Amino acid sequence: MEELDTIGAMQSWSLTTDKFIDHAARWHGHIPVVSRNHEGQVSGTTWQHIRSDAARLSNALAARGIRPGDRVATLAMNGAEHVAAWFGIMGMGAICHTLNPRFSDEQLVYIINHATDRIIFADRQFVPLIERLRAACSSIEQVVVLDEAGPDGWASFLDGYGDRYLWGQFDENIGAGLCYTSGTTGLPKGVLYTQRSNYLHTLMIIQPDSFDLGAKDVILPAVPMFHANGWGLVFAAAAVGAKLVLPGSRVDGASLYDLIEREGVTASAGVPTVWLGLLGYLEKSGKKLGALKRVYVGGAACSEALIRAFARHGVEVQHLWGMTEISPVGTSGRPRPDVEAMPFEDQIPYRLAQGRSMIGVDLRIADDGGRELPRDGKSVGAIQIRGHSVVERYFRAGDIAVNGDGFFDTGDVGTIDEQGYMRITDRAKDVIKSGGEWISSVDIENSAMSHPGVELAAAIGVPHPKWNERPLLLVKLADTADVSASGIQNLLSEKLARWAVPDAIIFVDEIPIGATGKIDKKLLRATYSSHYESGAQ
Amino acid sequence: MEELDTIGAMQSWSLTTDKFIDHAARWHGHIPVVSRNHEGQVSGTTWQHIRSDAARLSNALAARGIRPGDRVATLAMNGAEHVAAWFGIMGMGAICHTLNPRFSDEQLVYIINHATDRIIFADRQFVPLIERLRAACSSIEQVVVLDEAGPDGWASFLDGYGDRYLWGQFDENIGAGLCYTSGTTGLPKGVLYTQRSNYLHTLMIIQPDSFDLGAKDVILPAVPMFHANGWGLVFAAAAVGAKLVLPGSRVDGASLYDLIEREGVTASAGVPTVWLGLLGYLEKSGKKLGALKRVYVGGAACSEALIRAFARHGVEVQHLWGMTEISPVGTSGRPRPDVEAMPFEDQIPYRLAQGRSMIGVDLRIADDGGRELPRDGKSVGAIQIRGHSVVERYFRAGDIAVNGDGFFDTGDVGTIDEQGYMRITDRAKDVIKSGGEWISSVDIENSAMSHPGVELAAAIGVPHPKWNERPLLLVKLADTADVSASGIQNLLSEKLARWAVPDAIIFVDEIPIGATGKIDKKLLRATYSSHYESGAQ
Repeated sequence: MEELDTIGAMQSWSLTTDKFIDHAARWHGHIPVVSRNHEGQVSGTTWQHIRSDAARLSNALAARGIRPGDRVATLAMNGAEHVAAWFGIMGMGAICHTLNPRFSDEQLVYIINHATDRIIFADRQFVPLIERLRAACSSIEQVVVLDEAGPDGWASFLDGYGDRYLWGQFDENIGAGLCYTSGTTGLPKGVLYTQRSNYLHTLMIIQPDSFDLGAKDVILPAVPMFHANGWGLVFAAAAVGAKLVLPGSRVDGASLYDLIEREGVTASAGVPTVWLGLLGYLEKSGKKLGALKRVYVGGAACSEALIRAFARHGVEVQHLWGMTEISPVGTSGRPRPDVEAMPFEDQIPYRLAQGRSMIGVDLRIADDGGRELPRDGKSVGAIQIRGHSVVERYFRAGDIAVNGDGFFDTGDVGTIDEQGYMRITDRAKDVIKSGGEWISSVDIENSAMSHPGVELAAAIGVPHPKWNERPLLLVKLADTADVSASGIQNLLSEKLARWAVPDAIIFVDEIPIGATGKIDKKLLRATYSSHYESGAQ
Repeated sequence: MEELDTIGAMQSWSLTTDKFIDHAARWHGHIPVVSRNHEGQVSGTTWQHIRSDAARLSNALAARGIRPGDRVATLAMNGAEHVAAWFGIMGMGAICHTLNPRFSDEQLVYIINHATDRIIFADRQFVPLIERLRAACSSIEQVVVLDEAGPDGWASFLDGYGDRYLWGQFDENIGAGLCYTSGTTGLPKGVLYTQRSNYLHTLMIIQPDSFDLGAKDVILPAVPMFHANGWGLVFAAAAVGAKLVLPGSRVDGASLYDLIEREGVTASAGVPTVWLGLLGYLEKSGKKLGALKRVYVGGAACSEALIRAFARHGVEVQHLWGMTEISPVGTSGRPRPDVEAMPFEDQIPYRLAQGRSMIGVDLRIADDGGRELPRDGKSVGAIQIRGHSVVERYFRAGDIAVNGDGFFDTGDVGTIDEQGYMRITDRAKDVIKSGGEWISSVDIENSAMSHPGVELAAAIGVPHPKWNERPLLLVKLADTADVSASGIQNLLSEKLARWAVPDAIIFVDEIPIGATGKIDKKLLRATYSSHYESGAQ
C-alpha cells in the first residue's frame, strides 16, 4: 500500500459548527431569526446579524483570555442572543455549557464547579439564581446578561469588537457543547458534544426520514436550548438556512399559537405537555392552525389522543426518541412507505412507536448477558445504541460509558419489530424481572389507570423468594371512587399477561413524586422491599 | 487546555461506505434492488442479498491477495452485481475504479495502467473490449464477468466464501473510489474519492434541499455508475433504504418508461438526452407517467422545453450542477420558498439556473486575479468550489489541484445572484475576453441558432490587436436556408450586448465535432487564430 498522502486526496473540511452559521449567513443571510423575550415582545434579526454577533463574541471572549477548550456557560431560554452565544463560543473552540435553570441549586453548584465555567451568559430572569449560587462557584469570572442594555449586558460585552474571526482552527474532535443529565440517581453527568458529533448529528436529522428540514421550513424549537442540545434544531436551522422562531420562556398554548401563526411556523418540536397546552388552547378558543405541518414529540411518550387531535388540525405528529447522551436523536417516527399507505387508523400503532433508526445510528435490544435479542416486536430488552453522536465517556469521567461491543446502554427497555420500529416499554431500573420474564411497570400502570376510579398508579418490582421479583401495585383512588382491589385485579387480568398481574394491590393516600416530576420508585421500592418476603402470595 | 482525550468524548464512528450497506441490510433488508440486464430481462434481489454478496466478495478479494489501497476496477452498466462489487471492494479498503466503456481504447489503456488495476469486474458485453486492451495492460491479473455463470463469472468468483467480513477497519480518509475525467485536453486525470468524502457527500445530497431522498422513494439512476461516482445515488439509496432500480444499458425512452412504471419509480436522475428520449416516447405513445415525482437533470444544461414537458406530466425537474472532481454534486435546483411561491412562469428562470449550494459546499465566482466577484446575478467569473467532497489532488499527481485559498477552479464560468442561484454561462476555456469584458460563447451560439436558417453555430475568441480577443462566429446553414451575414448580425444585435456581437461571421460546410460529441473549439481557434490580425475590423 502506497503512502496515502501521496496518492491523491479530497479536500480536508473539518466538521465544525462554524460551518453552519457561515453557510446560513452567506446563502440565507436575510432569512429572519425571530425571538420573543421574557416580557412577551417579539423582535427579529437575521442569520447575517447572528453571524456577525457570534464573530464579535469570539473576539470578545479571546480578549478576555478564553482559550479553546475552556467552558463558557449559558443560562437562558431560546432567543437570538443565545443562538449567537452558542456559535460565538463554539466557533472559537471553547465549550458551550448549557445550564438548565430547572436544576436544583445544589445540582447547579455541582455542575458549574465540575465544568469550571468561567463566564455565564444569562437571561435577566436568571440573574438572581446565579447571585444565589455565585459564592459557591469560584470559577465564575463574569456574568453577562443577554437581555440587558447596561454595562453587564450583551451589547457592552461585544462593544468595540469586530465581526471577523477565523473560526474552526482546531481539530474537529474537540469539545463544542456540554450538557449535564440530571439523572434520578447519583450526581449529574456531563455529555461533551464534539464539533464533529454536532455536525454529523445535524446532517443526520435534517434528512427526509428524520426531521425533514430545508430552506422551505420555519422552525420553532419549543424545547429549550438547554435540553439535550436543543434537540439539534438550532444547528439544523442554520445548516439549511431556515427561518428560526424562538419562543423565549413563553410556551403556553396562547403564546405558542400566537407565534406559530404570526411567523408561519411549519415545523415545531417539544415535549407532550407543551403540545397538550397548545391543543387545549385551540379547543377552548376554536382557533385553527395555518402553516404548521409537522410537530415532533419527544422527551416523553406521545399519546394516541395527541396524534389524533393534531391530525384533526391537519398536523402530522412525529414521535422522536433520544436523550442527552445521544445528541439527542436516536429514532424518528417518519412512517415507512408501507405504513403511510395504510388507513390512518392502522397507522396509529406505528405512529405511537418511538420510531426507526437512521444512518449514523446503530440500535439493538439486548438481554441481561448483552446478547442481541430478535427484532420480532415481542422480545423485550435493554435498548443499546452506538453512532457518531453517542457518548463514549462522560465529561471528566474515569471510565468509558460503553460496553465491550461499543454500545451505550440507554437505560430504556423496549422492543424492535420486523419493520424496524422501536417501542419503549419501560425504564430499565423500573422493569420487573419475574421468573425470567420482563414485566413493564408502565404497562401495569396504564392498565390500572384505565379504571375510572384510579387517579394514579405505581407498579414496582419487589423481591420474591421464588420468582426473584413480583409486581406490587400502589393505587391512589380518585376522591369519589369506591373501588375494590379485586375490581382492579379483574381489569388487569383482562389487559395483561397472566404473569404480569400484580400479586398485591395497596391503596395509598399519596404516591411520592421526585424532583423531576416523576414517581419516586426508588423510595417505593425501599418502603415495600419486604412485602413478599414470606413468599406467601 | 486539558488533554482532549481525558475530558470526555463522543464515540468514534468512522465515516466509511460499509455503513451504508450495513444500514440498508439491517433496517431495510427486504427492500428490492431491481436490475434489467443487457438482454432486457428484469430481475430482483434485496439489500440483504447485496450485502451478503458484497461481504463474500470482500473475502474472495482478500483470498486473492487484494489489500487495502489496491485498485480493483469495474467496467459495467448499472446492475445489482455492480452495486455489490462496489460495496465489497470498498468495504475491505480497496479502491473501486469505475472504468468508462465510452473512453477510447487509448484512454482506457492509459488509465488502467495509471491506476494499476489488478482485477476487473465487467459486464459480458465489455469482455471483447478488455480482450483488445489486455496485452497493453500488464497489471490486470483477472477479469470476472458479472453476468456470466461460467468459471470466469461472478458466482464462481464468490463460490465458497462466507458472508461475514469485518468491514471498515481502516482510516476514513483512505481512498474508496477512483474515477477518471476524460478532459478535452491532456491526459485523463483520476479523482480519488475517499471513504469519508463519499459518506459526507451522501448525507449532503439526501437532504430535502438537494435530492430529498428517503425510504419513501424508488430511485432509478439513469446515469451510469461510471459517470462521476454515479452521482452518489447508489450510496444514497442504501443510506436511506430506498428501493433501487437499475436500468442496465437500456435507457432509451421505451425501456426507461417500462421500468419506471413497472417498478413505481419516484425519483430518477440523468443527462438531458436521456430525458428527451423518454419525453419523445411519451409523446409518440400517448402514455402517462404514474408514480414519478422528480427528475434530476445534470451533465449538461437543462432546457426550458424539458422543464415544461415534464411539468405537463406532473413531474418536477430539478437542475443539478457538478462534475467528477466534486463527487459530483455542487448545486441543486430545489427552489427557495420565495421562488416556489411564484406562478410557474416566473419560476422558469430560477429552474433553469444550475441551483444553489448546500451545507458542505462553499461556492464563489472569481475574476482573473482570484478576487471574489459580487453575487449580483450580473458579474461573470470563474466558478470555484471547496468542500468535503471536492478534489484536493488528482490521483498520483505531483501538484495539488486547488488555489492558494483552497478552492478548486471548476473550469466553468457563470454568475451567482442575490438569492444564491448559480448560472453557468460558459466553459472557462471558451469564454471570449474582449477589452475587459467576458463574453459567453454559449450566448452568441444560442442567439445565432434562434435563427431558423442556422443549423449549428460556433463562437470563438480570436486574438485582436486592440481588444485582446474579439468574437468570431462560424455558421453552418440548414440545407435549404438562404441567409446573409447581415441578417444574422441584425438578429445578434437585438439579442446581445453591443460588445458581444461578433465582428465577423464565416459560413462553413461543417463545424468540427470532437471525441466527446462537443464542438472542437480548440481546432477552430487554431484555424482562425490570425483572422483579426490586421486589426481592421
